[in-house]
Amino acid sequence: MLGRGVWSSVRQGLSRGLSRNVGGWASGEGRKVDIAGIYPPVTTPFTATAEVDYGKLEENLHKLGTFPFRGFVVQGSNGEFPFLTSSERLEVVSRVRQAMPKDKLLLAGSGCESTQATVEMTVSMAQVGADAAIVVTPCYYRGRMSSAALIHHYTKVADLSPVPVVLYSVPANTGLALPVDAVVTLSQHPNIVGIKDSGGDVTRMGLMVHKTRRQDFQVLAGSAGFLLASYAVGAVGGVCALANVLGAQVCQLERLCLTGQWEDAQKLQHRLIEPNTAVTRRFGIPGLKKTMDWFGYYGGPCRAPLQELSPTDEEELRMDFSSNGWL
Amino acid sequence: MLGRGVWSSVRQGLSRGLSRNVGGWASGEGRKVDIAGIYPPVTTPFTATAEVDYGKLEENLHKLGTFPFRGFVVQGSNGEFPFLTSSERLEVVSRVRQAMPKDKLLLAGSGCESTQATVEMTVSMAQVGADAAIVVTPCYYRGRMSSAALIHHYTKVADLSPVPVVLYSVPANTGLALPVDAVVTLSQHPNIVGIKDSGGDVTRMGLMVHKTRRQDFQVLAGSAGFLLASYAVGAVGGVCALANVLGAQVCQLERLCLTGQWEDAQKLQHRLIEPNTAVTRRFGIPGLKKTMDWFGYYGGPCRAPLQELSPTDEEELRMDFSSNGWL
Amino acid sequence: MLGRGVWSSVRQGLSRGLSRNVGGWASGEGRKVDIAGIYPPVTTPFTATAEVDYGKLEENLHKLGTFPFRGFVVQGSNGEFPFLTSSERLEVVSRVRQAMPKDKLLLAGSGCESTQATVEMTVSMAQVGADAAIVVTPCYYRGRMSSAALIHHYTKVADLSPVPVVLYSVPANTGLALPVDAVVTLSQHPNIVGIKDSGGDVTRMGLMVHKTRRQDFQVLAGSAGFLLASYAVGAVGGVCALANVLGAQVCQLERLCLTGQWEDAQKLQHRLIEPNTAVTRRFGIPGLKKTMDWFGYYGGPCRAPLQELSPTDEEELRMDFSSNGWL
Amino acid sequence: MLGRGVWSSVRQGLSRGLSRNVGGWASGEGRKVDIAGIYPPVTTPFTATAEVDYGKLEENLHKLGTFPFRGFVVQGSNGEFPFLTSSERLEVVSRVRQAMPKDKLLLAGSGCESTQATVEMTVSMAQVGADAAIVVTPCYYRGRMSSAALIHHYTKVADLSPVPVVLYSVPANTGLALPVDAVVTLSQHPNIVGIKDSGGDVTRMGLMVHKTRRQDFQVLAGSAGFLLASYAVGAVGGVCALANVLGAQVCQLERLCLTGQWEDAQKLQHRLIEPNTAVTRRFGIPGLKKTMDWFGYYGGPCRAPLQELSPTDEEELRMDFSSNGWL
Repeated sequence: MLGRGVWSSVRQGLSRGLSRNVGGWASGEGRKVDIAGIYPPVTTPFTATAEVDYGKLEENLHKLGTFPFRGFVVQGSNGEFPFLTSSERLEVVSRVRQAMPKDKLLLAGSGCESTQATVEMTVSMAQVGADAAIVVTPCYYRGRMSSAALIHHYTKVADLSPVPVVLYSVPANTGLALPVDAVVTLSQHPNIVGIKDSGGDVTRMGLMVHKTRRQDFQVLAGSAGFLLASYAVGAVGGVCALANVLGAQVCQLERLCLTGQWEDAQKLQHRLIEPNTAVTRRFGIPGLKKTMDWFGYYGGPCRAPLQELSPTDEEELRMDFSSNGWL
Repeated sequence: MLGRGVWSSVRQGLSRGLSRNVGGWASGEGRKVDIAGIYPPVTTPFTATAEVDYGKLEENLHKLGTFPFRGFVVQGSNGEFPFLTSSERLEVVSRVRQAMPKDKLLLAGSGCESTQATVEMTVSMAQVGADAAIVVTPCYYRGRMSSAALIHHYTKVADLSPVPVVLYSVPANTGLALPVDAVVTLSQHPNIVGIKDSGGDVTRMGLMVHKTRRQDFQVLAGSAGFLLASYAVGAVGGVCALANVLGAQVCQLERLCLTGQWEDAQKLQHRLIEPNTAVTRRFGIPGLKKTMDWFGYYGGPCRAPLQELSPTDEEELRMDFSSNGWL
Repeated sequence: MLGRGVWSSVRQGLSRGLSRNVGGWASGEGRKVDIAGIYPPVTTPFTATAEVDYGKLEENLHKLGTFPFRGFVVQGSNGEFPFLTSSERLEVVSRVRQAMPKDKLLLAGSGCESTQATVEMTVSMAQVGADAAIVVTPCYYRGRMSSAALIHHYTKVADLSPVPVVLYSVPANTGLALPVDAVVTLSQHPNIVGIKDSGGDVTRMGLMVHKTRRQDFQVLAGSAGFLLASYAVGAVGGVCALANVLGAQVCQLERLCLTGQWEDAQKLQHRLIEPNTAVTRRFGIPGLKKTMDWFGYYGGPCRAPLQELSPTDEEELRMDFSSNGWL
Repeated sequence: MLGRGVWSSVRQGLSRGLSRNVGGWASGEGRKVDIAGIYPPVTTPFTATAEVDYGKLEENLHKLGTFPFRGFVVQGSNGEFPFLTSSERLEVVSRVRQAMPKDKLLLAGSGCESTQATVEMTVSMAQVGADAAIVVTPCYYRGRMSSAALIHHYTKVADLSPVPVVLYSVPANTGLALPVDAVVTLSQHPNIVGIKDSGGDVTRMGLMVHKTRRQDFQVLAGSAGFLLASYAVGAVGGVCALANVLGAQVCQLERLCLTGQWEDAQKLQHRLIEPNTAVTRRFGIPGLKKTMDWFGYYGGPCRAPLQELSPTDEEELRMDFSSNGWL
């Protein structure tokens, strides 16, 4: 069985309902939260007039709450966070906190372009109930985002955050991979607990696990497409868009990996690759939301400039699920 | 002499101080503004504690106001707009409006990720004095930013903007070039007057000029590095970071191109390439601001996560100017 | 235990010394060769005057022959095949055939830019003793290398090859990944037995395994950096530059994967990532050959334009091995 | 009028039929050839059975010989040189030499992957009549092709070449741009006379002209799409695939640039962009050859794996010419 034993006692605590206190690192104890497990990155439902639909958000959460997720990521890339105002971002997190089961973790995306704005958003996220902040790399000036700049940015955020910080590297959106040497340096910060890596390069993921092995630092896969492989190289979980629609299956894949049932895990992983690509790289959030509609959740429209799928795209999206036995 | 005669009468009007009314397109007259000319993309000065230093901003504007620029771009990429709050963005534009000469154009960057936020920012920019809005492509979900999505986005913004709209394509920052077919479609919108293209692909620029030749649509080069070549293929000006420090020289290059003195233009262009690359792609805004300090402007620090130049970088930056005779 | 049972009887046959006949597909039997296992991609030794040093080649082979490899890849990217004449390419394969143990497989790289030249080289490779041909994608006209073009190319080669064909996708060298849909189509050809994929994208590798599951088609990892993850998603072996210097360790990693000892496999994999990157992407063939010199093989110089490592590079290369306990 | 006067007397000599002796640099005179002007990169005609059709080659040359080209490039990327055997490469050059007008230059592509093979091919090309060798960057090991490696490669080739050497950078095919610093160093070699740059980055081209201004070194545009802009920044000609079908028009564009008729030049340039893109990046050599068939030359098939155009592609190709008034 894979996984890092260091977390086991903390995790037992968590399962007894202590999650809200785990992040109490602020007073210098350096106690970290165990983030191992599966998380759906929650989408933000909108009405036909592009208002945030908090009622639908809560309904989705109630349905998602029945799966053995470790928690929820709110305001990840799938949450359309760049399209929300600051107050919407906070209100969404607050509503999720209330609607979700008490024993689960809430990781809230608090990344902004400037260090100062990120610090402020991180503090606010903690105030409305986030257990940890998940902080995407700034990217508009990517040509100047050296390791030194990124280390400076994340150190400042982690210094001032009341909750633990999870690094977030998602080159498909940012055009920028957080360099491994920066990750290794940042892993030594007492308030940085891990990274969500959506790049899909497992050589890099294995290297991060290896070079942070003496730190309390955990690696999460950023997608269900390489979840099995990520477990194989030492990741402890995943933030998976696909878990918004195939939650039971993604959790089943986690269980198979954690219990060493690799042949069954492989078979299940194989059937998840095309659906996963369909709701991420191929058809993006419009594809994910359309699929949510099919699977009994509220998907609904995206905010502009994201467009609805064409009928042809929708047909191909359906095929990617049906040909693998999911529809 | 190059340039498109269609604008001449409008431009005469502008030179008589009518610029503030030129953008009065809202009532359906379809009258457009002539944006031909050179613009420095104004930097945002910060104090040592990272507050916007409006006094220094005004001092810079007074110095820049002595050159024969067509106007100023505020909140372009060099303005660190992703690091400013909404109210800072508007206040900066408002201050520039007051500090700058009355007969010049103020192009204000109003791009945001969502269409709705971009519309609102564009309207606000017009209210605080922008003559036109310059709108960068949304980019976080670049994988979904098809021509159709971008056409939809810009059409909505242009429909609702009280001032003319300038498209803005800057792939070094956004990872996304606004496709030529989208530009051609958008050029037909009565409230879209041109594009600032920072990509440096003059084949593409020539094609845009060619395919929009039946529209009132103008192309601006987004950098001094390919300004001469852009004029050669039909561009009518440029938004040039380098004009913040070598304003006279960039205007001189414009004049040489417009009067057909191509040999002298070429010699001058050659001496501007390395300095231009130094304050843009190579050393970014920190390089530009450092150079401003050398040339009698206030450069000052950038907001984090942008970092100061190392001594070695600074030395190379200086060399790029001195080896071309500018320092 | 992973791996595909379909091959077991064939493999038993191979271990009894029948390998040279396995490729006898030409007469329509459709019998394929089982390529599961580990292969070093053999380097081509040169003298100080850049002649092929066949003596050193044989010495290296004798040393490598002591490890439980499935066979050898000759004229892969690490063999500097683009620097060899056609007759040198054939002579090298011929010498390896003679020097290597009889019960192992010889996969010979026969890719050329044109289909016709590739066919001829493939036939010649078979004549001098190759058990299978490993065929890199043509790449100079990569803008035109659609799936259709590549399917046409490989089909022609496989139709005319007297030995089974292994596809070879190595985007770091070719700028081109063989598309999954082309791989799936080609997997149905009776004379195409698998693919060596050096891209490192395990999502893609898992998808290829999944979509070819009804064919006799095997996937080999093209590098030791993601070997464990590749086994996890259904690959059956690897062609690993690192096996030229850490042959025992790469074979040990294979054994740990095949026997389901995933925790030990993970620890070993972790320690191989940096050395592997050092002899591939980071320092290339000059790095691999330098390391061979350290580990008791003959590395020697590369042909120009490949250059020797600088002393600084050499120091970093050494560190990548020593910091992981291998030097 | 642009252009570099230093060449005028040499060029006069050339026009009097002295071209074959101009390259006589070997004996240490250091006399260079003036390469200013327009060149079509000649295609290699094949029969229906993919044999080189030397008769058709000569017919094409006779037709092309009627335009005021400076000469011909043989075995550039459009010559399908990677698909030819060494003897075919030489025979094609030899035939072109005989079929082309005596007062024009023959630039023969002699690039191979290894330095040694390139030297040998260069010497052979000179022997069969090349006036200069045009040498593409080696690219298979592009990760190791540092400036140092490329400087070493080209220096060796230029040292040993009996004819002047033209550098050739074509990133669309090689994935590699010859770095400007390497170009500047190499421009000082007495047997290196210029570069053909197909990348389309005129900032880079202007910088090369500027930094080699004290050398006898000339820059040629590698495509008709940015020919006008290239002249504007100091290039002295172009190697243009489009000149194989619109030879008169490309020469006319040259004349307009050289005589300073920039407005007419711009209009003509605009109409050539889409046709140029169509026969290069968009539809490649199959597109160029199809167009040659339309314009009275022999295009014919390509060697595999290059495929014929689909009917849809052919329709779009035709549109790119007809919508600009060329068909």
